[in-house]
Amino acid sequence: MKLSQRIQAMQESPVRKLVPIATKAKSLGKKVYHLNIGQPDIETPDVFMNAINEYDSRIIKYSFSQGEPTLIKSIQNYFKRDDIHFEDNEILITNGGSEAVTFATIATCDPGDEILVPEPFYTNYNGFTGEVNATIKPITTYAENGFRLPNKQAIEALITPKTKAILFSNPGNPTGTVLTDEEMHMLADIAIEHNLFIISDEVYHGMAFDELESKSMGTIPGIEEHLIIIESVSKRYSACGARIGAIASKNTALMLNILKLCQARLCVATLEQIGASALYELPESYTQEIKQEYETRRNIVYDTLNQIDGIVCEKPQGAFYVIIKLPVPDAEQFVVWLLEEFDVNNETIMLAPAEGFYATAGLGKDEVRLAYVLNSEDMKTAMNILKLGLEAYPERLI
Amino acid sequence: MKLSQRIQAMQESPVRKLVPIATKAKSLGKKVYHLNIGQPDIETPDVFMNAINEYDSRIIKYSFSQGEPTLIKSIQNYFKRDDIHFEDNEILITNGGSEAVTFATIATCDPGDEILVPEPFYTNYNGFTGEVNATIKPITTYAENGFRLPNKQAIEALITPKTKAILFSNPGNPTGTVLTDEEMHMLADIAIEHNLFIISDEVYHGMAFDELESKSMGTIPGIEEHLIIIESVSKRYSACGARIGAIASKNTALMLNILKLCQARLCVATLEQIGASALYELPESYTQEIKQEYETRRNIVYDTLNQIDGIVCEKPQGAFYVIIKLPVPDAEQFVVWLLEEFDVNNETIMLAPAEGFYATAGLGKDEVRLAYVLNSEDMKTAMNILKLGLEAYPERLI
Repeated sequence: MKLSQRIQAMQESPVRKLVPIATKAKSLGKKVYHLNIGQPDIETPDVFMNAINEYDSRIIKYSFSQGEPTLIKSIQNYFKRDDIHFEDNEILITNGGSEAVTFATIATCDPGDEILVPEPFYTNYNGFTGEVNATIKPITTYAENGFRLPNKQAIEALITPKTKAILFSNPGNPTGTVLTDEEMHMLADIAIEHNLFIISDEVYHGMAFDELESKSMGTIPGIEEHLIIIESVSKRYSACGARIGAIASKNTALMLNILKLCQARLCVATLEQIGASALYELPESYTQEIKQEYETRRNIVYDTLNQIDGIVCEKPQGAFYVIIKLPVPDAEQFVVWLLEEFDVNNETIMLAPAEGFYATAGLGKDEVRLAYVLNSEDMKTAMNILKLGLEAYPERLI
Repeated sequence: MKLSQRIQAMQESPVRKLVPIATKAKSLGKKVYHLNIGQPDIETPDVFMNAINEYDSRIIKYSFSQGEPTLIKSIQNYFKRDDIHFEDNEILITNGGSEAVTFATIATCDPGDEILVPEPFYTNYNGFTGEVNATIKPITTYAENGFRLPNKQAIEALITPKTKAILFSNPGNPTGTVLTDEEMHMLADIAIEHNLFIISDEVYHGMAFDELESKSMGTIPGIEEHLIIIESVSKRYSACGARIGAIASKNTALMLNILKLCQARLCVATLEQIGASALYELPESYTQEIKQEYETRRNIVYDTLNQIDGIVCEKPQGAFYVIIKLPVPDAEQFVVWLLEEFDVNNETIMLAPAEGFYATAGLGKDEVRLAYVLNSEDMKTAMNILKLGLEAYPERLI
């Protein structure tokens, strides 16, 4: 039997495909610092497990298809901090931000339809769209100017009758950019003028540094019918394995239709919703502390990068990633070399080659994504390994 | 903005759309016995929460995309009871059986491709296939002969170049049928001769009554490359809200490709996998007890049905459902009447109109699905309400 073309066309996860090489390095006794995946080392707040343990779990029943009422209420309260008000039926709980993006794609696109996405982008957007036959059309951005968006005309030139939505993460994975007010309003204007949905992935919301404000697209008036916000507990609350996300939108027809997708798959895991509700009830000060911690780590990363000749990297502004353009011909080979051939006191690092974050062939070949998800001491050690590794790399260009 | 055609074409859950009417009845003080949804009243075994509480949950990390190794091992052991042997890479953990069927559809079908499904069928199959643009082509079966499959020729007549798979649940939801050896071999032969996948939904495996054996399609030799088994903890272990399922297949290319879908959505909830692993480690005697309990309930249901004139219903053989052809012109109206107009001592029942379980327009209009998911005492009360309700129903035909 032949498999479907759509599944054969999907790429393997570029973040995960080098895992066997890292596993081998570890089996040979080398310590590997994982900067290749967005798995924070911060403990999940206790309230998560406490809430689960207090829950009456005698029968692990189906939850509501739209989500547990207590979780929906908590997410409403979370948005209210930014003066954004969602009704009960304007929030749907999903299996992480992942299912939320997939559902938004199914609801807005038929097979062959297109979604504009600034590249480099979160690589799994390829999966969420490709598996349901929507196509990503990239809005290319560049390391040299800190991955700022091009102007309105350049973006509008990419719009065709098949374009249904603009999808982006803000603060951005993998770039660490935070959209400016001007960029947000430009995207809003484009959506309104060209009748497009905006799928605003805000799972890193609140994580913007240097006094920058991480604003939700929900604060922009006039785009209510266009806007689909993607939420998740994974990063902000260090609960990646909970797989709790949400779709929030004031477009009633859209939400009634996405509810049908929710009903088909019945519900999201009940216990994890109970735990996630407690996470959203944590005070704003929790998010502030977490942001401060990542800002400290960002500073360690950027200070070291500034000491390395030949790299291109603007100061990342948010989330916990940075894309680094390296003075090497092939970043993936460098990543493999770090794992297989290099060590400092029998320790090395793992990075994510950035090519997989681009839709345009050939772009990102000399770039890596680094996730600063380790504590400050580990980050210092890891960054020193990167510095020494680049100095020692035989294929180094500059 | 227009929504996609595919999402607009999806039907609302026929099981859930009458929920507001039941809610209203309850708000007026009426007790409603829910026989409309497959939510068992049996307690989830303690081992589930115990395992979660023993797990080191300081950081709720991403699990592996393919699933937690301990859960994969437990499912391997579960299959071994039937002398079916799966390697580590032949099992992928999914968000319930729901995601498993969706992934199997994406992997085997491109948009416009067809899957043969005996009807009446589990209504969410419509969602899992329609949302990714595959089409269900029904193999119609009838209450009058206990929903047995038609002969091979009749099924083969439905196959077109677009047919990629045959999907069915066994033991069957909503019919309660258990496939005979002859039916299983016929389906296997058709798959081999016409180069089709078999998607065998075995989430009710083990729940066959009257000394009938519920056999897995995995016991049939020669179809290894064709066979995709769908598993779930929901029903057998009364853990519907855990959302833990699995895909098992010996087709290596298929599994490598479905792994890409698993990687895109990162992982399934970590804690629930740990709990589910403990469920699968329960001894075979647990499944036997559960089966015995449902057999007792089935007997209560069938004994009452035998006392009612004018219904058509063969004795259900497994799972915990039965489709009943009623002497009424419109089963949905009868279901609504039971909720709105009828009661016995201020108690009534809720059933699922069966029309939504058919793909062929007009079929099932006079049928309901009844889920015997309540304890024996409640089932006796509920069945008496059904009997008295039918006697009192003004629109009754016979």
